[in-house]
Amino acid sequence: MDGEEKGKKAAFEAGIKLGALFHQFIGAPVSLENAEILEKAIESCVKLQPFVVDVGVKIDREKLKEKLSSFNYTSLTGDMLEAWVKVEVDGEAVSAHLRWDEEKRYPLMSLE
Amino acid sequence: MDGEEKGKKAAFEAGIKLGALFHQFIGAPVSLENAEILEKAIESCVKLQPFVVDVGVKIDREKLKEKLSSFNYTSLTGDMLEAWVKVEVDGEAVSAHLRWDEEKRYPLMSLE
Amino acid sequence: MDGEEKGKKAAFEAGIKLGALFHQFIGAPVSLENAEILEKAIESCVKLQPFVVDVGVKIDREKLKEKLSSFNYTSLTGDMLEAWVKVEVDGEAVSAHLRWDEEKRYPLMSLE
Amino acid sequence: MDGEEKGKKAAFEAGIKLGALFHQFIGAPVSLENAEILEKAIESCVKLQPFVVDVGVKIDREKLKEKLSSFNYTSLTGDMLEAWVKVEVDGEAVSAHLRWDEEKRYPLMSLE
Repeated sequence: MDGEEKGKKAAFEAGIKLGALFHQFIGAPVSLENAEILEKAIESCVKLQPFVVDVGVKIDREKLKEKLSSFNYTSLTGDMLEAWVKVEVDGEAVSAHLRWDEEKRYPLMSLE
Repeated sequence: MDGEEKGKKAAFEAGIKLGALFHQFIGAPVSLENAEILEKAIESCVKLQPFVVDVGVKIDREKLKEKLSSFNYTSLTGDMLEAWVKVEVDGEAVSAHLRWDEEKRYPLMSLE
Repeated sequence: MDGEEKGKKAAFEAGIKLGALFHQFIGAPVSLENAEILEKAIESCVKLQPFVVDVGVKIDREKLKEKLSSFNYTSLTGDMLEAWVKVEVDGEAVSAHLRWDEEKRYPLMSLE
Repeated sequence: MDGEEKGKKAAFEAGIKLGALFHQFIGAPVSLENAEILEKAIESCVKLQPFVVDVGVKIDREKLKEKLSSFNYTSLTGDMLEAWVKVEVDGEAVSAHLRWDEEKRYPLMSLE
């Protein structure tokens, strides 16, 4: 693979990780009590995957509070989830981000 | 099993079905274009499960429209999903419902 | 609600919890490294839900080892997942179990 | 964006789609009866997503048969799922594939 191919493969791998984590964990029961363990568990799942160098997952506590049901928890949704991942393929590194875009009303994933 | 035990088992089985369908399909990409095929697919998944006699799944088109992103689709969420299931265990039938409760801000599942 | 109705509701709630946890977390990346944090995260999600008194989740390390890919992790599947939950509705308690049934090749959920 | 950047972005978008579809639908109840509607529903979900030009999803009926439980259905797993997607970003097209790799025991996703 030349540099361009490695860069494409790294970008592809980064996309897989963000698509995967979103669709695996959206819907999970979450509250202020378990947000941290859920973040850590999601990170632990991403770290296992090929080419991953680093990952971070953040559940927005303010948005979480706003959405709590009367049972004091809710389902994890895209508007409270932020994640970033760094992957590396043969020395070519790519970082990507998942962040709610309020204007688009969409969990936007983008390369950095 | 006596009648009471059958009724409990039927209620248990109904609960499994609603819990399963919610957490399997929440997060799926949905728009006005594919809402119907998604409803049919979810129903087809529930019908396969033991003791199921009947099932219906409805994605609320009005709520769906309100939540569309600028890409013209969104992720399936609890506030647009309604489902009901009838299960039968040895002649004891139980019906149950999944319906968004606006006041509780919660996808309430209940026996009928 | 009389005792029979409470028992049915408790059984229904127990079913919801097992159906939910199975379909939310099946597919999650898992290895010997993160099995414990995943167990804890799943338990934390179940504990948030209404009527839950106790819950336990166990990922079978032997089956997990057998199924590891050459990337040293795999996707969580029903044959390595065990869970039990105790729910209580107005004094009526119900315990239920999710356990792989090798003969039926099925993640069997049952009342105790 | 220059051609290389477009190519990277297209690869990233292709990765998102494959990661998403795998983790959204793994675990869904599937049998010979509903495999086709499930394939169509998954395709319909991918088609909604940005930059997608074409997509195909195939559930391997032979592997499905081998894995049927005594209830005549099973949960969708990576070893019976194949998918391909074509995305295009500003004229730069990328195709990618999800295919079970028997030797790696892994649902391998790759650029073409």
